[in-house]
Amino acid sequence: MKWDEISQQQCSVSRSSAVLGDRWSLLVLTDLFLGVRRFEDFHQRLGLSRTTLTNRLKLLAEHGVLQCHVYQQSPTRHEYRLTPKGLDLFPVISALVNWGDKYYFDGCAPPILRRHVPCGHDIEPVLTCPECHEEVDARSITARKRPDSDALPAVERGPLSYSSK
Amino acid sequence: MKWDEISQQQCSVSRSSAVLGDRWSLLVLTDLFLGVRRFEDFHQRLGLSRTTLTNRLKLLAEHGVLQCHVYQQSPTRHEYRLTPKGLDLFPVISALVNWGDKYYFDGCAPPILRRHVPCGHDIEPVLTCPECHEEVDARSITARKRPDSDALPAVERGPLSYSSK
Repeated sequence: MKWDEISQQQCSVSRSSAVLGDRWSLLVLTDLFLGVRRFEDFHQRLGLSRTTLTNRLKLLAEHGVLQCHVYQQSPTRHEYRLTPKGLDLFPVISALVNWGDKYYFDGCAPPILRRHVPCGHDIEPVLTCPECHEEVDARSITARKRPDSDALPAVERGPLSYSSK
Repeated sequence: MKWDEISQQQCSVSRSSAVLGDRWSLLVLTDLFLGVRRFEDFHQRLGLSRTTLTNRLKLLAEHGVLQCHVYQQSPTRHEYRLTPKGLDLFPVISALVNWGDKYYFDGCAPPILRRHVPCGHDIEPVLTCPECHEEVDARSITARKRPDSDALPAVERGPLSYSSK
C-alpha cells in the first residue's frame, strides 16, 4: 500500500501519520512549540539540508499545521507560525517529550522545563479521563470499533496483556 | 546531520523520533495498542511488505518497545507484545488519535471508541496539569532550558503567538 493510499484511509493514526510520521517533521514541530519561527533558525538548530527543510515546511503548511507570514518587506522576510490545528498537536509533542525524558535520560533531569502558567508549577502534563479525572494509561482503556464504522481496526480487546520484562 | 547522530542528541524528541518518526512504526504501534500480536495480522491489516514489517518490528524490539514471544512450539510461532516502555507510549498514540479524529473526520463520529474501564465512560483522554488538574494546551505552557543543561533548545518563550487563521 502506498502512503497516499494510507492517508486516505479512515484510521485517524493513518491519516495523522501521513503528516507526522517523519522524523524531521517532528523536530520542526517541536522547534515551533519552542518558539522557533525562521527558516535560518530551523536550519541552524536542526542541521538538516535546506531542501529537506523546505519540503517539510511545505508539507506542514499544505496540511494546515503551520502558516507562512511576511514579517518584513524589502527585502521580504518570512516566518512560520503554528495554526490552531498545529497548536492542537501540543499533546502529541508533549507526550513524546515525557516519554523521551523518561527513557533516554537515564535518571538525569530532563533538559527542558515546562511551566504551567496559570498555576506556576514546573510540570510533566499527564493524560486523564475527562469524566472521572483519574490518570489513564494503556491498561485502563479498552478500544472497540464504532458499530456503524468500516474503519480498519477489527480487534476488540480488554485491558492489554503485556510483556513482564 | 545524520539520523544516528540526531538520536544521540540530548533533545527528548530527537531521541524519541529516531524510534517513532516513521509512519509504519506508528501504525504498527497503534495496532499493538488495539490488540494485534501476530506478524500475519500486521501484514494483512497494514498492507506493508513483509520486509518492511520485519524491519519495523526489529527496530521497535531493538529499542525495547516490544518483545517477541514464542506462543507455540513445532512449528514455532511468535507473537509481539508491548513492553512497559512500549505501553508508556499510550499517551502519544492516544493524542495522535484525538488529533486525527478532530481534523480528519469532518464532523463525523470517530471510528474507534475508547472506554475508560474504571469509570465506564467512552472518552477522549485529555492532557492535564498534575498540580492543579486543569487541562493544559500550547498556550498555557512555557518552556525554558534547565540552567545546567547543554540541550539543543535555546529559545525561551512565553505563551505562544499563533496564526489567527
